[in-house]
Amino acid sequence: MKKKKAVVLLSGGLDSTTVLALASSEGYSCYTMSFDYGQRHRAELQQAQKIAASYAVLEHKVFSIDLGIFGGSALTDNSIDVPESMAGGIPITYVPARNTVFLSLALAWAEVLGVSDIFIGVNAVDYSGYPDCRPEYIDAYEKMANLAIKSAVEGVKITIHTPLISLSKAEILHKGVSMGVDYGQTVSCYQANEDGAACGKCDSCRFRRQGFVDAGINDVTRYQ
Amino acid sequence: MKKKKAVVLLSGGLDSTTVLALASSEGYSCYTMSFDYGQRHRAELQQAQKIAASYAVLEHKVFSIDLGIFGGSALTDNSIDVPESMAGGIPITYVPARNTVFLSLALAWAEVLGVSDIFIGVNAVDYSGYPDCRPEYIDAYEKMANLAIKSAVEGVKITIHTPLISLSKAEILHKGVSMGVDYGQTVSCYQANEDGAACGKCDSCRFRRQGFVDAGINDVTRYQ
Repeated sequence: MKKKKAVVLLSGGLDSTTVLALASSEGYSCYTMSFDYGQRHRAELQQAQKIAASYAVLEHKVFSIDLGIFGGSALTDNSIDVPESMAGGIPITYVPARNTVFLSLALAWAEVLGVSDIFIGVNAVDYSGYPDCRPEYIDAYEKMANLAIKSAVEGVKITIHTPLISLSKAEILHKGVSMGVDYGQTVSCYQANEDGAACGKCDSCRFRRQGFVDAGINDVTRYQ
Repeated sequence: MKKKKAVVLLSGGLDSTTVLALASSEGYSCYTMSFDYGQRHRAELQQAQKIAASYAVLEHKVFSIDLGIFGGSALTDNSIDVPESMAGGIPITYVPARNTVFLSLALAWAEVLGVSDIFIGVNAVDYSGYPDCRPEYIDAYEKMANLAIKSAVEGVKITIHTPLISLSKAEILHKGVSMGVDYGQTVSCYQANEDGAACGKCDSCRFRRQGFVDAGINDVTRYQ
């Protein structure tokens, strides 16, 4: 039997690493994709590469795309400070149309590879402020994708897999630990240092730390 | 009254230049966007810049994005020859997920600018082989976009304008000429030379030339 193949978006963070482990455990041979999109630090890109290697992916691609050219987000615009606590509403760390841009590039690669399964680690529970992490967005994206590309129009349906979308951080961690994921390798912090050590203060660090507490799992994160 | 603003995708070709003229004539102040996506020639990028200037746009941005990294298209992969005649079906000059990627970047810029109107010169008549030029694709894209971004979720509806979608090349030319578009400035050829002179042989040249013939308009294209 021919092995199933998938394109997995891999940022090097906790969520996407869990997704790669899940896709692998479900029997997919994976192509992984990271984005160098003008984010504040590159530590997660280095970790993504190591993680991809540790899962023996078919190919890992780093796609350079300068979303910083648009400005408007604390994650790509150095003139905006990363906030240390949630202010309510959609946070300033939101990058405009980020998942739409990333999924579109994953779709392009998937079409060239002849792959019809795309995995993304979006999560609607802990990050409910991001519109492009919600199930209704993913459903609409999948419908659009199936009208967009040659292979889908010719009958090979594209599926956007979001195995974490309704899980809490603690549930994600339990799932990952049960599959042997080494979370010490992952970087979630919005402003990690060069070695990948986390600030412990930004929203992403807070959610992550709380996830370990809620899960009753030892926090293996390296802090600055 | 505050002037309406729009983001217009401008390749420097016949269609997108007509779209810019149309948006301007409808009272939109325009931001224009070209993509340096690994295409075979840069002449259209140079022309796009000149055309944007001649319409006094608010800002013209050239976004670099290496779609050639994926391969799979004669337009970005130098190992694949550009065909000189239509072979039927979806042509090899199709770039995987191109309009999806371009619209996604336009969407990102539109969100940062606070603009809710995006114009794209897709055309379902002459290029019926490209799935991402069909009305059903554009409708699905618009639905997705309105679930994807912060401003849309907060109530500012995104509209994807496709004023050429059901027009023939001849109808597009008539419309453009009536608005004073200088088609001598535009480059449609898939393999134009450095000066922007067209090959006269590729699909794009054939459609364009036939358009002038059908419209009964003098073909101002510069050929090699």
